[in-house]
Amino acid sequence: MQDLEYMRLAISLARATIGQTSPNPSVGAVLIKDGRLIGSGAHLKAGTPHAEVHAIQAAGENARDGILYVTLEPCSHFGKTPPCADLIIKSGIKKVFVATLDPNPLVAGNGIKKLKEAGIEVHVGLGEDEAKKLNHSFFHFIKTNTPFVTIKAAVSLDGKTAAKTGDSKWITSPESRLDVHQLRHEHDAILVGINTVLNDDPLLTTRRPQGGKNPIRIVLDTHLKTPIHSQLVQDQSAKTIIFTSKDVDSKKVEELTGQGVEIISFHTTNIPIKEMLKVLGEKKIMSLLVEGGSEIHASFIEEGAFQQVILYIAPKIIGGRSAIPFVGGEGPELVEYSKKLEFVSFEKVGPDLKLIAKPLVEED
Amino acid sequence: MQDLEYMRLAISLARATIGQTSPNPSVGAVLIKDGRLIGSGAHLKAGTPHAEVHAIQAAGENARDGILYVTLEPCSHFGKTPPCADLIIKSGIKKVFVATLDPNPLVAGNGIKKLKEAGIEVHVGLGEDEAKKLNHSFFHFIKTNTPFVTIKAAVSLDGKTAAKTGDSKWITSPESRLDVHQLRHEHDAILVGINTVLNDDPLLTTRRPQGGKNPIRIVLDTHLKTPIHSQLVQDQSAKTIIFTSKDVDSKKVEELTGQGVEIISFHTTNIPIKEMLKVLGEKKIMSLLVEGGSEIHASFIEEGAFQQVILYIAPKIIGGRSAIPFVGGEGPELVEYSKKLEFVSFEKVGPDLKLIAKPLVEED
Repeated sequence: MQDLEYMRLAISLARATIGQTSPNPSVGAVLIKDGRLIGSGAHLKAGTPHAEVHAIQAAGENARDGILYVTLEPCSHFGKTPPCADLIIKSGIKKVFVATLDPNPLVAGNGIKKLKEAGIEVHVGLGEDEAKKLNHSFFHFIKTNTPFVTIKAAVSLDGKTAAKTGDSKWITSPESRLDVHQLRHEHDAILVGINTVLNDDPLLTTRRPQGGKNPIRIVLDTHLKTPIHSQLVQDQSAKTIIFTSKDVDSKKVEELTGQGVEIISFHTTNIPIKEMLKVLGEKKIMSLLVEGGSEIHASFIEEGAFQQVILYIAPKIIGGRSAIPFVGGEGPELVEYSKKLEFVSFEKVGPDLKLIAKPLVEED
Repeated sequence: MQDLEYMRLAISLARATIGQTSPNPSVGAVLIKDGRLIGSGAHLKAGTPHAEVHAIQAAGENARDGILYVTLEPCSHFGKTPPCADLIIKSGIKKVFVATLDPNPLVAGNGIKKLKEAGIEVHVGLGEDEAKKLNHSFFHFIKTNTPFVTIKAAVSLDGKTAAKTGDSKWITSPESRLDVHQLRHEHDAILVGINTVLNDDPLLTTRRPQGGKNPIRIVLDTHLKTPIHSQLVQDQSAKTIIFTSKDVDSKKVEELTGQGVEIISFHTTNIPIKEMLKVLGEKKIMSLLVEGGSEIHASFIEEGAFQQVILYIAPKIIGGRSAIPFVGGEGPELVEYSKKLEFVSFEKVGPDLKLIAKPLVEED
C-alpha cells in the first residue's frame, strides 16, 4: 500500500464516526511499521480518547519508529484529554502524515511545530480534500460559530415536494428514504417549519436497520401552534426545541415546557433565521438538516443561510399549477436574481437521483 | 480492431446523420478486407443511395470476399433505390454483420434471408442496443405512425422554467443552449404553445456554429391568437404549422395562410394531442421536440403522449410560489397518481446537468 492508501484508510475510519463525535471532529489514525499495520483507531465520542491514542495503544512498545497517518493535526493543548502531540513524541513514532491542519487559526500548526521540534518528520496535506469534506460541518462551525446547514428535499422530476392536496407519500424510493436516515444520524439537529408539523406530524428520528443517533428536533413556529399531542412533543426519544416569536400564549408555553420541550422566543414578530442559527451555535450544534417545507426552504435560501442542498429527485412527474414546489416564498422578478449554486456531485440511489449542490462563491 | 469496434464505427457514421435522413433511418456501413478498411458510408438523405451502396462503391472490385458491418438490415425490396441485398450479393461480400433487423415486421428478416440464400454468412445483433437507440424515432414511427415525442425543458434546481414575471433569460448555460440547438437539428419538428409565442416570440430555428437543419415549427393555438407579426409567421427559414380549434376567425386564417403558414383546424373546442400527432405522422414527421410552456407539457404528460423527457437543470434556485413550473395543469390529488418514469442517463453539460428520462413500462 502507498501513503495515500493508508491515509484513505484513516479517512474511512473517521467517516464511520460521522454523527457521533460532535462537537468534536471525526478523526481517524493508522499506524504502520515495516509495511505492516500495527495500530489504528478513530475518535469515538467527545470526551473520550483521540484517534491517535487508540492507534498508539494498539501498537504498544511496537509504535517506536512507526509511521502515523492521521486525518487532522494532532492536538498540542490540554483539553478533556492530554495533548496527542506529546503522546506521539513519547511513543517514538518517526514520521507523521497529517491530512489537514486544525481549522482554528489560533492553534493551527502548533501540533505540527511541536512534533517537528521533537525531530519527527511531518508531512501535511496528504488526502486533504477528502479529509476536509469529511469534517465540513466542524470546519464551518469553528469558523462561524453557527451550524453547517444542509437543505434536504425529496422532489419529483418537476420539482414538487407534494401534490396539490399536500400528499407526499411517497415521492422517492425506499433506498432514498434510507439514505435520509443516514443524513439524520450524521446531523446534530433537524429542522422543520410549523406547517410540516401540522400537515405530516413527523417523528424526525433516525430509523436505520443498524440503529443510529437521533438529531435534536427543531421547529420554527412563529405563533406557537405546535399541537401538544404531536409526535415531536409526545415522543421522548430525542430533544425538541421550538423557536417562536413574541406575544405567544404563555399557557401554551407552559404546557409544552411541561412535556420537556424547550421554547426559545424572539422579541420579534417573525423568527430571524441567522439569529436562530447563532443560538444553535451556542448550543454546540455543528450541523443542521433542514427538511422543509417549501416556505422554510425559501427563508433559508433568501437569507443565504445554507451551505449545501441535497435533492433526491424521483423519476416521476406530479404536475399541477398548485402542487407544492421545493421552494416557495415570494421569489424574484428576474431569473438573474436567482440564487446561484454549483453541483458538487450526482449519483443514482435506487431509481432516484441524489444531487448535491452548494452556493457558488463568485469571484470578484 | 474487433468486430464490435467496426460496428461502432458504422454506428458513429450513422449518428452523424441524425436529423438529415427523415423519413428514412440513419444508417452507417463499414467494409473490411484482410483487416483493412476498404469502404465506408452512410445514408445521407432520403431518396439518395443507402449506406451499403457508398461502402461498396468505394471498394469497387475489391469488395469481393470483404466483411460488411451495417447498422440496419439491408433492404430487399425496390424503393427509390434498388435493393441493397442484391448489390451485396453481386459484390461478392462473404460475411455481413447486421446490428438491427428492419423494424417493419412485414419485411423484417427478408434482407437477411436473401443474403443467406446466396451463401453469405450473416450475423445479427452486434451493437444492437446502440443502433436501436440511434434510430429510436424511426423505430417508434414505423410501429405507431406517429412521431417520437421528446419533452425538453431548461429548469432551475427547484423545477422552475421562469420567474413569476415570466422572465426566463437565462436559466441554463450557453453550453446547454447549444446542446438544445443540436436537438432541434436532429428533430423533424418543434412544438410550442400559444403562450410561449405570445410571451417569448421565439424563432425556433437551429443555430449551431456548424450550421444545421431547421425543424418544422408547430404551434398549438386553440383560439388562433398567433400575431401576424410574430417571428414564427414572418421568418421564412422554416415552415410553420398552426393547429387550432373550430370557430376561429376566417379572416385571421387567410392572413396567416397568406404568409405561408399552414393552418389545421380541429372540429373541437380544444386541440386533441393524440389526433394532432396522427396528423404529424401523416406528414412523415418522425420526431417532435416539445419546448413548452408548462401547460403544453402538462397536456402531453397527462395524455401519456411522450417517449422521452430531456431536462437541463441549472444549479440555481429561482424560488417563489408563483414562479412558472416545468409542468402545469391541474395535477393529481395524490403522489401515487403521478406519471412514473425511469432515468436513462445524466451528464454534466457545462455547469448544468442534462437528465434524460423515459416513461416507465410497468410489468404486469
